[in-house]
Amino acid sequence: MKLWGSDTHVDPEVERFTVGDDCEVDRELVEYDCLASMAHAKMLRRMGVLSAKEERALLAALEQVRGLAQQGAFEIRPDQEDCHTAIEEYLVQAVGEAGKKIHTARSRNDQVLAALRLLYKARLQEIEQRTEHLTQVLVSFGARWEQVPLPGYTHTRKAMPSSVGLWAGAFAESMADNLDALRWVRRLIDQSPLGTGAGYGLPVQVDREFTAKEMGFARVQHNPLYVQNSRGKFEAAILHVLTMVLADLNRLATDVIFFSMPELGYFRLPAELCTGSSLMPHKRNPDVFEVLRAHYHAVVADEYAVASLVGNLISGYHRDLQLSKGRVLRALRVTRDCLGIAAHVLPKIQVDEERCLQAMSAELYTVQQVLQETLRGKPFRDAYRNEARRWQQGEEREDG
Amino acid sequence: MKLWGSDTHVDPEVERFTVGDDCEVDRELVEYDCLASMAHAKMLRRMGVLSAKEERALLAALEQVRGLAQQGAFEIRPDQEDCHTAIEEYLVQAVGEAGKKIHTARSRNDQVLAALRLLYKARLQEIEQRTEHLTQVLVSFGARWEQVPLPGYTHTRKAMPSSVGLWAGAFAESMADNLDALRWVRRLIDQSPLGTGAGYGLPVQVDREFTAKEMGFARVQHNPLYVQNSRGKFEAAILHVLTMVLADLNRLATDVIFFSMPELGYFRLPAELCTGSSLMPHKRNPDVFEVLRAHYHAVVADEYAVASLVGNLISGYHRDLQLSKGRVLRALRVTRDCLGIAAHVLPKIQVDEERCLQAMSAELYTVQQVLQETLRGKPFRDAYRNEARRWQQGEEREDG
Amino acid sequence: MKLWGSDTHVDPEVERFTVGDDCEVDRELVEYDCLASMAHAKMLRRMGVLSAKEERALLAALEQVRGLAQQGAFEIRPDQEDCHTAIEEYLVQAVGEAGKKIHTARSRNDQVLAALRLLYKARLQEIEQRTEHLTQVLVSFGARWEQVPLPGYTHTRKAMPSSVGLWAGAFAESMADNLDALRWVRRLIDQSPLGTGAGYGLPVQVDREFTAKEMGFARVQHNPLYVQNSRGKFEAAILHVLTMVLADLNRLATDVIFFSMPELGYFRLPAELCTGSSLMPHKRNPDVFEVLRAHYHAVVADEYAVASLVGNLISGYHRDLQLSKGRVLRALRVTRDCLGIAAHVLPKIQVDEERCLQAMSAELYTVQQVLQETLRGKPFRDAYRNEARRWQQGEEREDG
Amino acid sequence: MKLWGSDTHVDPEVERFTVGDDCEVDRELVEYDCLASMAHAKMLRRMGVLSAKEERALLAALEQVRGLAQQGAFEIRPDQEDCHTAIEEYLVQAVGEAGKKIHTARSRNDQVLAALRLLYKARLQEIEQRTEHLTQVLVSFGARWEQVPLPGYTHTRKAMPSSVGLWAGAFAESMADNLDALRWVRRLIDQSPLGTGAGYGLPVQVDREFTAKEMGFARVQHNPLYVQNSRGKFEAAILHVLTMVLADLNRLATDVIFFSMPELGYFRLPAELCTGSSLMPHKRNPDVFEVLRAHYHAVVADEYAVASLVGNLISGYHRDLQLSKGRVLRALRVTRDCLGIAAHVLPKIQVDEERCLQAMSAELYTVQQVLQETLRGKPFRDAYRNEARRWQQGEEREDG
Repeated sequence: MKLWGSDTHVDPEVERFTVGDDCEVDRELVEYDCLASMAHAKMLRRMGVLSAKEERALLAALEQVRGLAQQGAFEIRPDQEDCHTAIEEYLVQAVGEAGKKIHTARSRNDQVLAALRLLYKARLQEIEQRTEHLTQVLVSFGARWEQVPLPGYTHTRKAMPSSVGLWAGAFAESMADNLDALRWVRRLIDQSPLGTGAGYGLPVQVDREFTAKEMGFARVQHNPLYVQNSRGKFEAAILHVLTMVLADLNRLATDVIFFSMPELGYFRLPAELCTGSSLMPHKRNPDVFEVLRAHYHAVVADEYAVASLVGNLISGYHRDLQLSKGRVLRALRVTRDCLGIAAHVLPKIQVDEERCLQAMSAELYTVQQVLQETLRGKPFRDAYRNEARRWQQGEEREDG
Repeated sequence: MKLWGSDTHVDPEVERFTVGDDCEVDRELVEYDCLASMAHAKMLRRMGVLSAKEERALLAALEQVRGLAQQGAFEIRPDQEDCHTAIEEYLVQAVGEAGKKIHTARSRNDQVLAALRLLYKARLQEIEQRTEHLTQVLVSFGARWEQVPLPGYTHTRKAMPSSVGLWAGAFAESMADNLDALRWVRRLIDQSPLGTGAGYGLPVQVDREFTAKEMGFARVQHNPLYVQNSRGKFEAAILHVLTMVLADLNRLATDVIFFSMPELGYFRLPAELCTGSSLMPHKRNPDVFEVLRAHYHAVVADEYAVASLVGNLISGYHRDLQLSKGRVLRALRVTRDCLGIAAHVLPKIQVDEERCLQAMSAELYTVQQVLQETLRGKPFRDAYRNEARRWQQGEEREDG
Repeated sequence: MKLWGSDTHVDPEVERFTVGDDCEVDRELVEYDCLASMAHAKMLRRMGVLSAKEERALLAALEQVRGLAQQGAFEIRPDQEDCHTAIEEYLVQAVGEAGKKIHTARSRNDQVLAALRLLYKARLQEIEQRTEHLTQVLVSFGARWEQVPLPGYTHTRKAMPSSVGLWAGAFAESMADNLDALRWVRRLIDQSPLGTGAGYGLPVQVDREFTAKEMGFARVQHNPLYVQNSRGKFEAAILHVLTMVLADLNRLATDVIFFSMPELGYFRLPAELCTGSSLMPHKRNPDVFEVLRAHYHAVVADEYAVASLVGNLISGYHRDLQLSKGRVLRALRVTRDCLGIAAHVLPKIQVDEERCLQAMSAELYTVQQVLQETLRGKPFRDAYRNEARRWQQGEEREDG
Repeated sequence: MKLWGSDTHVDPEVERFTVGDDCEVDRELVEYDCLASMAHAKMLRRMGVLSAKEERALLAALEQVRGLAQQGAFEIRPDQEDCHTAIEEYLVQAVGEAGKKIHTARSRNDQVLAALRLLYKARLQEIEQRTEHLTQVLVSFGARWEQVPLPGYTHTRKAMPSSVGLWAGAFAESMADNLDALRWVRRLIDQSPLGTGAGYGLPVQVDREFTAKEMGFARVQHNPLYVQNSRGKFEAAILHVLTMVLADLNRLATDVIFFSMPELGYFRLPAELCTGSSLMPHKRNPDVFEVLRAHYHAVVADEYAVASLVGNLISGYHRDLQLSKGRVLRALRVTRDCLGIAAHVLPKIQVDEERCLQAMSAELYTVQQVLQETLRGKPFRDAYRNEARRWQQGEEREDG
């Protein structure tokens, strides 16, 4: 029976359609719902709704559910609709009457948000750690090959001298900005939604500061309607910050695929990083970098999905938002995995110093020529035009 | 062992990352890969690569795989990477040497596309049928309540008289255009990719017309590089047409949610279509229409994901495209389900004739007033301004 | 005074904000609004609303406006809000009473759609012609360099032998599919909206078949509510088809930038196609191809803007749609320009036959080796594994 | 003559296509380019490239350009391509040789970024001020109508009692989070790019700390390649934060349109906020709120355009990025205007206390009933089910 069920029976096709893949998506959420429910149970004790004994029983049962969830052993049946029903049913079975009290002064609307935000915070922290780790890997890679020159490209054309150290450093500095972005968005969402009911508060006094502190939130999100309206907005902000990380990985992967083309040969990918072709026996393909590159677009799309879902809707909860859940959880997993794989494969990349040196051709040094002359007093634009003319004549001779 | 494996071992983390969720996504694809492989086996027989006996053995084994797949009993192991490897391994085990010949003159690149397009065609046909069915349901609904007036809204404000028949007819006519769009996109992709290898043709003669006909494709897609380059382009086109269908369902659902607000009461949703609240016992929520509305945005996002994935890449296959597979298959399923549920719930909606009649207030008839005067010779703009002034004075009196 | 004005005055900031850049955007629309208004005037004559003299006067005045618009000399003042008001005011000034009759039995809602669709049809026809022209240019380019071999790439790695002819042919065949898509979408929108008023029909009899025929529409769009609901849907479909064209140009441009890298040197861009750097005097940048590449993303974004604008809105017109107008007109211009520039620059590209020949290295021919053996009876997978092992050993020797 | 010109002439069609609408878009940029160029001139003086006299002359001329730009009187000719060329040409004409020296140790790549970021900072500050102002307006509106009850909706259905104060407060609290987001993104981009050349540094010593301080940047962005790679990433972050602001305005506008429907009548829009219909004389349309609502989607689309443009490109500048410029500038203007109009119209909205009170029907108080019982010891789920049953029976009686 649903949490909201009474004696009416919902059409089974309607039920199947509205539930969608929530039973599967919600698996990740169970342990965070338990944490939030524990805080709520403690508050209900303080309100006098639960006895000390009931509180103890509920906390113990919630700890059990959490343990089961961490082992992947907590089941959500399709007829239970979502993890929140499944947990309440477990509690009623395990502790009886007290289980029927757990939802006092709570709505699924604030309950879901509490669980989701606890999950977001945990995932973001993991992503921050991996971002820091990748930064170190980038710094090490840059340090290891610091002296190796590399042609610097603009417009996919050789421009000026660069180096492997400069290249890796660009990503390391970018990751530092990403870390700041990750922390900003974690602060943004670090607001407790619990105690706001369905978006319009509750007709009884609840201690929101207490539950916020119990769950480890930095602060209470005050306005109950804002709590509901911020769903989608917070998620889109998280997804955007993930796309910042993934944009860098997209570019890093694109560079690696490009620099390791045998025609350029600046980088070499060991065989263990490459996959082959079902038809062409000679192939060594950089699939891992292609997949890394591709995830950026998928998460940008998921950000859009969330941004678009919530448009043109009046204030207050709408079931539409359910479709955002799976996408946000997936994007958090994907970003974590992408950071992990990037840090794993980067140190395995070989830099071919000889090919790099050979590639440092004359055109990379024209700016140096021009700026030498400006230091001797020649106006820049005149020195530039002389050098430009010289190059152009060279090209015409080659063509002629 | 992968199809492309030799003696090199790929780093297991790289393997896990690149394979992603293909083992799961590919389940749907198995039966279509079998159909394509059957056609290919027959052609290999004609080429003389397979003996008659080998051909028979392969066809029988492929039929087995197809049967298993249709029962959901064909397993793809993570180390097999995708359904194509799993099927080839099955064939080698089942029929020995002949199994090792099935991939002659074929690349996974053309093989995947052949299977995908056969799947797309089947799914699109199902979606066309459901679109036709929904059209009939809309026509019936319109006919049943044809005489019931309904305020027509513009800018979310009462504008002119409409009717339930007009309302349902708008969606029926739109579905007819959708059907045309679905047929167009099915024709677009109804081109056989098989026999083009990795995108650059094959150094042996293959009979592409034969396999195309065997698989039921309307024509051969000639240029092998175009075959590869059209991946993503075809998928985005399919997704776009699905968003046309879903845009209509989004609007239909939005209208139903609006018209069935108790404050308006034009439509009534029976209890079996509504879900409740975990906190508020009185609630009858139109969740099924909210989820229906929301899927539009998700599929628009998936269209974008595919459109963006393929940008800025050179011609020829890239592994990035793998990420499009799951999204396209999901969108096809979702669209089919949305059409199904829409046709299922629409006839259950009750129209409240009394509330509709009560809502037909005077302002809906101002245009009629004005046009009467124009037929008596008054210039439209003068008649309009008189009537506008009359209304404005009425409003001011009400305010005063 | 606005068309809808009476004696109320709208807050000037509200007016400025809602009008936005319509005065500028609408310039392109004037001549098509005149064509639609001419058809409407003729119908009003048949209805008896206009006398023969009034009809003649209106047609002459509309012809004047059209002439002015084509010379860029028809002004739309901000206080006139849009081209429709400006034209009606011009008519009232030019022909007096008859001008005040032109809007009889018409709403701005169906009027705007009529003008827009006439414009779309004209622009799409121009784009179809340019697509056909580019196809010919691609065919000529392919024919001119047909014999020149080119490495075929997959995963940005050399795969199998290709040729310049094959490369150009891929785009030519794709353009043929695009042409079919352009025709489909033109047929989709080739429906007359005129005579449906504000979306709920008109309380007088109008001859929709007559005006449809006068304006050259293939058919009448029957349901008046569908006429309004199809706004956004039709526009998104047009934009999607434009992205199909631009996706090909994105890929073509990416290929040209890649193939013309001096490191590969398959293609050479003459100096007149290149732009330089403000700092680096040696630079020859392929900016024209980069901008060509970039427009794809901008139009995909505009498609999304339109798709998203119309989501979650009830049936009937909403002012939100105004924001789609400028984006669709811009995308049509951009696509036309991109096709034009592609056809203009492609023939100027030089193919460097010598560099192409040098690039045809041994690994491109491994499939040929393997397939030779399969024709001699060896199972494909065994022949493939032998060849794979051979390559791997060669690589290890090189590394050792 | 272009900055990069020598004696080669670029094909005029190529030039027109690549320049696009830069001459128009760049108008806004001129004054910020002058500020950056002044800092650069001062640094060149310290480097000894400019004499004191040359520096003075350049600073004076740049001040002139800035003045002209602020009056809208600085012209950029199409043959000048962009504002940077136009300014350099002006300087050469105004001060001779010194003008030819201004581009010493600078690339257009770092120059453009310096000007853009100065502009972004100024615009973001203005947007922050308007966000603060709107917050105050929301707080005042909430305070003014604080006591007026309002039905709280979930799923577009009456849920629990709310109030106008709660409603306005939700947006005020959200604006506070937006302000934090705006400040975060301003800090993110508050990094000086000047002195990094084309993305690979400069072969002469430049004082980046000095110019950063002169221009008022909070810090130097160190890695020159990151400077280039952050283009697009920073812009997408800005656009995302703008969509956070606009998402709230979208919802606020949607609520106002809904609450002011005559059928509900909670809010009343005075005539000066409404626009009319060209056909229907009675119409009072909330166009200003519809346009406000719509801009959200347009800016989300522009964020996507930027995010997508930069995907799959190797490190370093590409001309593709040019297409992001106009979109970002437009989105900054639009967001500023939307905040302005929202603050302008909100105080003019009337709340109809009587209609609000009438709307506070019994179903809004069911949770209060249930929670009363829980305080008397009844388990929540039992109390809930009793109440749910009671409501259901009531509904069936009504239907029966």
